[in-house]
Amino acid sequence: MNETPRVTFDLDAPGLSMGHLVVPEGSDCEALSLPVFSLNKGEGPRLLITGGCHGNELEGPIVARRVIEWLPEAQTCGRIIVVPELNPLAVQASTRNTPVDGVNLNRVYPGRAGGSVTERIADAISRLLLPMADTVFDLHSFGPTWDFPPAIITHPIADADLMAKTLKMAEACKMPVTLLWEYDVPGMFDTWVHSQGKLFICAEFGGGTVGAEALCIYESGVRNALIALGLVEGKAEHPTYRQKKSSQTLESLLSDELKSPACGIFEPRRSMLDEVNQGDLLGVLHPMDSLSAGSIDIRAPTTSIVCAIRSGGYVESGEEIVYLARPLNL
Amino acid sequence: MNETPRVTFDLDAPGLSMGHLVVPEGSDCEALSLPVFSLNKGEGPRLLITGGCHGNELEGPIVARRVIEWLPEAQTCGRIIVVPELNPLAVQASTRNTPVDGVNLNRVYPGRAGGSVTERIADAISRLLLPMADTVFDLHSFGPTWDFPPAIITHPIADADLMAKTLKMAEACKMPVTLLWEYDVPGMFDTWVHSQGKLFICAEFGGGTVGAEALCIYESGVRNALIALGLVEGKAEHPTYRQKKSSQTLESLLSDELKSPACGIFEPRRSMLDEVNQGDLLGVLHPMDSLSAGSIDIRAPTTSIVCAIRSGGYVESGEEIVYLARPLNL
Repeated sequence: MNETPRVTFDLDAPGLSMGHLVVPEGSDCEALSLPVFSLNKGEGPRLLITGGCHGNELEGPIVARRVIEWLPEAQTCGRIIVVPELNPLAVQASTRNTPVDGVNLNRVYPGRAGGSVTERIADAISRLLLPMADTVFDLHSFGPTWDFPPAIITHPIADADLMAKTLKMAEACKMPVTLLWEYDVPGMFDTWVHSQGKLFICAEFGGGTVGAEALCIYESGVRNALIALGLVEGKAEHPTYRQKKSSQTLESLLSDELKSPACGIFEPRRSMLDEVNQGDLLGVLHPMDSLSAGSIDIRAPTTSIVCAIRSGGYVESGEEIVYLARPLNL
Repeated sequence: MNETPRVTFDLDAPGLSMGHLVVPEGSDCEALSLPVFSLNKGEGPRLLITGGCHGNELEGPIVARRVIEWLPEAQTCGRIIVVPELNPLAVQASTRNTPVDGVNLNRVYPGRAGGSVTERIADAISRLLLPMADTVFDLHSFGPTWDFPPAIITHPIADADLMAKTLKMAEACKMPVTLLWEYDVPGMFDTWVHSQGKLFICAEFGGGTVGAEALCIYESGVRNALIALGLVEGKAEHPTYRQKKSSQTLESLLSDELKSPACGIFEPRRSMLDEVNQGDLLGVLHPMDSLSAGSIDIRAPTTSIVCAIRSGGYVESGEEIVYLARPLNL
């Protein structure tokens, strides 16, 4: 037991090479072999692309695998390492957290060598792959139960220079929304990468169904970012989303998070990116056992933009149902 | 134990009345109280509207509750009984099957009084509510992991007269798709209702996110059906879907069902309602542990229309990933 993680191939080999990142076995689970793709064209920016942190957010793994198809030809310099599925156990179970230990991989960075399997995955990434990169693209999404636009998000960063660089890189993806999101929990990959002075971009690739059209938008976003970093030549393109080619940069504060006042069926009455005035109806909560009079209106506390709204479905009391936002003024 | 199901209020009271259908307790679960709404305007068609058979298909319960808001005023004659959530246990767990006994409610009709809780629900519906209706609208959807249009479906019915009446009623909903779907498993609500010579319409209200715009389309479909039945006055309206006001009637055979050849991540390359030629790429299956060469192309076996396609996600070997269809020629 307590072996150290390892990579099964030479990451320094020129061109495209591939193999596995081996996460050692522990008392809870046998060793995992995560597929790793390395694209080495010498000097230049050093990038790590990761997907599949949460097993019910499959846009990332799919887009990561699509990028690998054309990147060997398109890349002009630098180093790119791609790990399409950080957490194969969660992907196979279609769950956010790792089923073996019930832990959220994005809450345990930098991980722990002797910890549970989720901590061991974080440790392997932090120890073996992160040192080889100056920039990280971590490909997430809002998951199947949310109505949410294709977006790049970043959390507030204390280092003003890194904050500015991060926002600039986020906007270079030209996704419909760039979001500065006040959301601070311990152990996030973002925070660990930022603490080392590295650039970290989190793609939150929409919610709901992972469809063919959406995947094309997401792939464009990653390509635009690769161009902005100087790893690929070409002209960035604004993907068309809902018949529009446009982007907006929004800010969402902790106070913009609306939670369900009771358990029951949430009925959305507005869609993502709708502009709403104070008092506007956003949705209705139907307590399950109620007859006609029991519904609870959910209204906008301030004039704002609907950034994310829960899909119609059963929610627990206190569960997040809406995130509001407004244009970012720096 | 072994009590009989009962309704807590007088279903024959004029106008709007409400109460519960009580499903008796059993050894697996205490008694359930399902909210029931009765709208009685005397002589005329007798309709039963049900939602929430599967707990991860929430369009039905939401649309049922929306209809109750305006129906007391709009209804001109006849009897309508609405049960928004047939299976509250599954709704609360957001699962297709009832979590207590693991049973699919739409596989156990007409139910069994001394059976497990799912069988007792079916028994209560079959015994107390179905005899009061000549037509049933059962509000389902394809669920969160599918890309599927708003549709009314019916399965082939041996009785030619009932088949014709059913298709006519289905098309009167004016949903983007009316689907005659060859799909035959024992114990479906459809089959039980048909066996009694009654009309049964199954709404399969799309897949993916349950959003505000989609819910408006679905509500229109139910309103159109109520007009066609003669329960509500007014003019049926074609809801706008993807910038178009149109409907098509399709047929999907058993041979149109494509299954995944392996377990892995399914990547959709086409969208629902796309027209495809024989050999066209529909999607790609990425076995999880594969490096670059492992992907499997999923191609169209015939020239057809993509009726439903799985959302990008992890699938097991043999799991359905695409349903094809073609215009119905009767």
